[in-house]
Amino acid sequence: MKSTNNTLTSYVASFVDELVRVGVNDVIISPGSRSTPMAILMAEHPTMNVTINIDERSAAFYALGVAKAKQKPVAILCTSGTAAANYFPAIVEAFNARIPLIVLTADRPHELRDVGAPQAIDQNQLYGNFAKWFVEMAIPEDAEQMLKYVRTVAGRAAGKAMSAPAGPVHLNFPFREPLVPNLEMNNLWGQGRQERTKHVNILVGKPKIDEDEIGHIVSIVKNVTKGLIVCGAHDDHEFVDVVTQLAEKLQFPIVADPLSQLRSGEHSKSLIIDGYDTILRNPEFCDVYNPELIIRFGAMPVSKALMQYIQKQPKATQIVVDGDGGWREPTLTATEMVYCDEVEFCNTLIKMTTEKDRSDWVDTWVHINNIVKESSSSIEDEQSLFEGRVFTELQEIIPRDATLFVGNSMPIRDLDTFFTNNEKQLKIMGNRGANGIDGIVSTALGVSSQNPHTILVIGDLSFYHDLNGLLAAKQHHLDITIVIINNDGGGIFSFLPQSAEEKHFEALFGTPIGLDYEHVVNMYGGTFNRVKNWEGFRTAINNSITSKGLSVVEVKTDRKENVAIHRKMWSKVSREINELIKKEYGNAYRSE
Amino acid sequence: MKSTNNTLTSYVASFVDELVRVGVNDVIISPGSRSTPMAILMAEHPTMNVTINIDERSAAFYALGVAKAKQKPVAILCTSGTAAANYFPAIVEAFNARIPLIVLTADRPHELRDVGAPQAIDQNQLYGNFAKWFVEMAIPEDAEQMLKYVRTVAGRAAGKAMSAPAGPVHLNFPFREPLVPNLEMNNLWGQGRQERTKHVNILVGKPKIDEDEIGHIVSIVKNVTKGLIVCGAHDDHEFVDVVTQLAEKLQFPIVADPLSQLRSGEHSKSLIIDGYDTILRNPEFCDVYNPELIIRFGAMPVSKALMQYIQKQPKATQIVVDGDGGWREPTLTATEMVYCDEVEFCNTLIKMTTEKDRSDWVDTWVHINNIVKESSSSIEDEQSLFEGRVFTELQEIIPRDATLFVGNSMPIRDLDTFFTNNEKQLKIMGNRGANGIDGIVSTALGVSSQNPHTILVIGDLSFYHDLNGLLAAKQHHLDITIVIINNDGGGIFSFLPQSAEEKHFEALFGTPIGLDYEHVVNMYGGTFNRVKNWEGFRTAINNSITSKGLSVVEVKTDRKENVAIHRKMWSKVSREINELIKKEYGNAYRSE
Repeated sequence: MKSTNNTLTSYVASFVDELVRVGVNDVIISPGSRSTPMAILMAEHPTMNVTINIDERSAAFYALGVAKAKQKPVAILCTSGTAAANYFPAIVEAFNARIPLIVLTADRPHELRDVGAPQAIDQNQLYGNFAKWFVEMAIPEDAEQMLKYVRTVAGRAAGKAMSAPAGPVHLNFPFREPLVPNLEMNNLWGQGRQERTKHVNILVGKPKIDEDEIGHIVSIVKNVTKGLIVCGAHDDHEFVDVVTQLAEKLQFPIVADPLSQLRSGEHSKSLIIDGYDTILRNPEFCDVYNPELIIRFGAMPVSKALMQYIQKQPKATQIVVDGDGGWREPTLTATEMVYCDEVEFCNTLIKMTTEKDRSDWVDTWVHINNIVKESSSSIEDEQSLFEGRVFTELQEIIPRDATLFVGNSMPIRDLDTFFTNNEKQLKIMGNRGANGIDGIVSTALGVSSQNPHTILVIGDLSFYHDLNGLLAAKQHHLDITIVIINNDGGGIFSFLPQSAEEKHFEALFGTPIGLDYEHVVNMYGGTFNRVKNWEGFRTAINNSITSKGLSVVEVKTDRKENVAIHRKMWSKVSREINELIKKEYGNAYRSE
Repeated sequence: MKSTNNTLTSYVASFVDELVRVGVNDVIISPGSRSTPMAILMAEHPTMNVTINIDERSAAFYALGVAKAKQKPVAILCTSGTAAANYFPAIVEAFNARIPLIVLTADRPHELRDVGAPQAIDQNQLYGNFAKWFVEMAIPEDAEQMLKYVRTVAGRAAGKAMSAPAGPVHLNFPFREPLVPNLEMNNLWGQGRQERTKHVNILVGKPKIDEDEIGHIVSIVKNVTKGLIVCGAHDDHEFVDVVTQLAEKLQFPIVADPLSQLRSGEHSKSLIIDGYDTILRNPEFCDVYNPELIIRFGAMPVSKALMQYIQKQPKATQIVVDGDGGWREPTLTATEMVYCDEVEFCNTLIKMTTEKDRSDWVDTWVHINNIVKESSSSIEDEQSLFEGRVFTELQEIIPRDATLFVGNSMPIRDLDTFFTNNEKQLKIMGNRGANGIDGIVSTALGVSSQNPHTILVIGDLSFYHDLNGLLAAKQHHLDITIVIINNDGGGIFSFLPQSAEEKHFEALFGTPIGLDYEHVVNMYGGTFNRVKNWEGFRTAINNSITSKGLSVVEVKTDRKENVAIHRKMWSKVSREINELIKKEYGNAYRSE
């Protein structure tokens, strides 16, 4: 008969071993006592990568970053009690952003639940609807069947997390004392293992639509000249290639969100429209230029102007393609919802349509987009530390293979406006599942643990929200450049109607907190550089890219001045667009 | 016809006004856009106290501290999305610690839900079982009935949060744009208001047991000499008086947890046993001294030795009294569960029993407790910075009216061992609902906003976990002394079996993070003092008590040495107890 410890050891070792065998070999562990058997066995496993992160909130966001960079599931492990509750924000983000996480929480066994025992909370269904799958695991028992069970759950968890839409799964493990596993056990990793690579291999298919079922969509596409392709956040390299091929064939402009991965890289850029947020702020343009067809891929883009433009096209056919079977369609005007793999959908259309001629429609979009680009680059005449210029500067000096991670809520918008498409093989990332300002530092650090030259651009409040995340940079010797756009408060509110409410504005929305982040960056062993001008900015970024460790570059800006410069730029472009509409196109494209 | 804005304004103003009228006039607001109408109207209300706290996790713990100090419900308000998820750890703690919170989350309206709209997550039942009551609020509509509805919900929310067991309630408010309320509206606070103080007055009763129903308990109590009263965390001043009266009448020792409020103040102390954690580590004592009756009040005490002692008393009658109708009984050996208000229960027993004579049983407990006190005070011979001595030192110099807030997981245990009962009117507090190391800084700051001379004693990892909480001290000019016991890692693990697992111990459990907190304390405008000896400690504490603002005193300790000194002290006491048992009492109390 095995001792209690050996029963526990076999059970947990089998789980860990199988997790690694199905490809989940990264785990972020937050210290605790109840999770001891899992933590020690993960640390002991020869091919499991264990990263310690003390604050569970940061730990979960860090894991999210690793999962985003690796595009595969990452595990997180914590002890029982509020530790597990701290995972919640990142789990919500992962669920909404469709990122696979394997959430492992240790728990007290049944006899210690709901009786006032320490660190015992009700962990059943702890994350509600935000965990795609919840399993209350069995108490370890000494039976071969239990090892098959626990290996099966490990495989299922990874399969479930990856299957569409990807997301977090939650396994809750009740453990009884004694908690220390027996590392001297014979055949530690081979228990309950069958003579194959995996206990059970899981294949995850993608939805495809037969050519005869897609016929009516092909007909629509064939008969339309004024088509528009809208691409939101998307992470598939193959998609980038096929959607640009499709656009070339149909001669439809591609409205490309900064997170669509379409604005950088070596694919064809001739039809990519990156200035649409500025263009669509012009009411005359929106009135005159109306598409007959919109095809949408990926998440809803960040631009509010685009959202409102789409809402004003009730006559257009609107096709939303979502290979994950979701409903990312807040305009409520879609006419076709297509649950088909995006690459497959594009390939089918390419195959079933004939090449179209260049039209005035596409020429106009491209022409006006060029006007916007010239105007937005004119902000380089602004000598003050204007927030948008952070992105025009970065665009020049960022290394070709870098990852640019952008925070919410202003940086992503300024990226949208000022970071135009280019030939660099950049990866542009952000947390756009729920668009929170929380957890950004940790997510970017998780990314930086996998990708070279990771640069995070973040606002001061968002940086403050996840200051604890910086510990990972110190502990794990990560290389990252963090650009803080510090306008001492919530910059986005100055663009919103709340800014007219002067009496309460600074207290409730502006919320200046007046922190000198140099102190805290020093505490975490980083270098801190508060730049005074754009030359200083370029020097600081170039230095940080070539040096190791955590490097923070702060750009101090002014919220009021920032709004004024944005508005000046939008007005300037708007006047130019109006002149163009008047002079060249008249009412040719006015919707009948 | 009212404008959209006026409809929204009336609805939210009525809710805010009624919340204040039922006594909820403290709100902690985290900035956001969707919550604009509620935030502005709360700021505008003449008698609502609004406190801004940027990080929602810290904000909710801060509110928990205010609610604990004021012993009444406190509201928290945030915007939609992950902001609300950040409240979760504090809500879990509030639920388990029975602290009333009114959780207000702003949400997108129905048409923006589950369609990929920004910052829109599923907020229905967001906190699962940890919210006592959840209401998906109606969209504001222009009807008198809606104002009655919203006022009724405000009152119900406060009533529900306070009714037994107290805890968090969650109201989710979907708001449509435009979000800015009309502060110029006529009769802003009087809408939907009836001509009374409150829309509906809510009276919350307490469970009482009739004298004839309690007869068999009275019989048990009357016939027993070897009785023990066990008091865990409790916050009712009246209870402290009546339970000491009951103990005197029955001549039962009171085993008093540090959070029972029984160890300090001017009530009778003659029967209070505060050295039980040390006493009950002695197996001979536990073998020989067995109670026939245990009466328990409040939460389960922190002492593991006590828990194990109670579990080894299967022959004893065990009465657990819980006026909140809970089941705080992890020993699984209770024989009587009494849902009766604790004060009422004590008064009934006092009334229905006759005075007992002093017994050998009580003499022995008191005598051995004195031995422990002498021995534990002998640690003052330890010149090194030993963690336990922080409490013996504090006991001497802490002001008479101070609040001592203790962190988890070692400080509460050292408080238990080394902070003995005294005449000062101290308030001793901690977060013992789920015993997390998270949110302690914010909870203590919430307390400090209400109580003079708040001193927090906290470990370095717990301090790190809620560094963001310190912003409140800076922003709201709070006075607090924080003593960091910095052993660079998780000190408690050195006491646990994990410490034998040398290969992985430091990486997974010791987890040194090597932070110099002086940097971050400076960032938040506090003073930092790393003391070198006990004289320096006393000077630093005395200075901090008489000065304003945030004052951090760091005591650097050594984890290994700390365990050694604890064990040396326990061994010394154990030998003394053994001698006493042998010499004076023989086998007189050996259970038959």
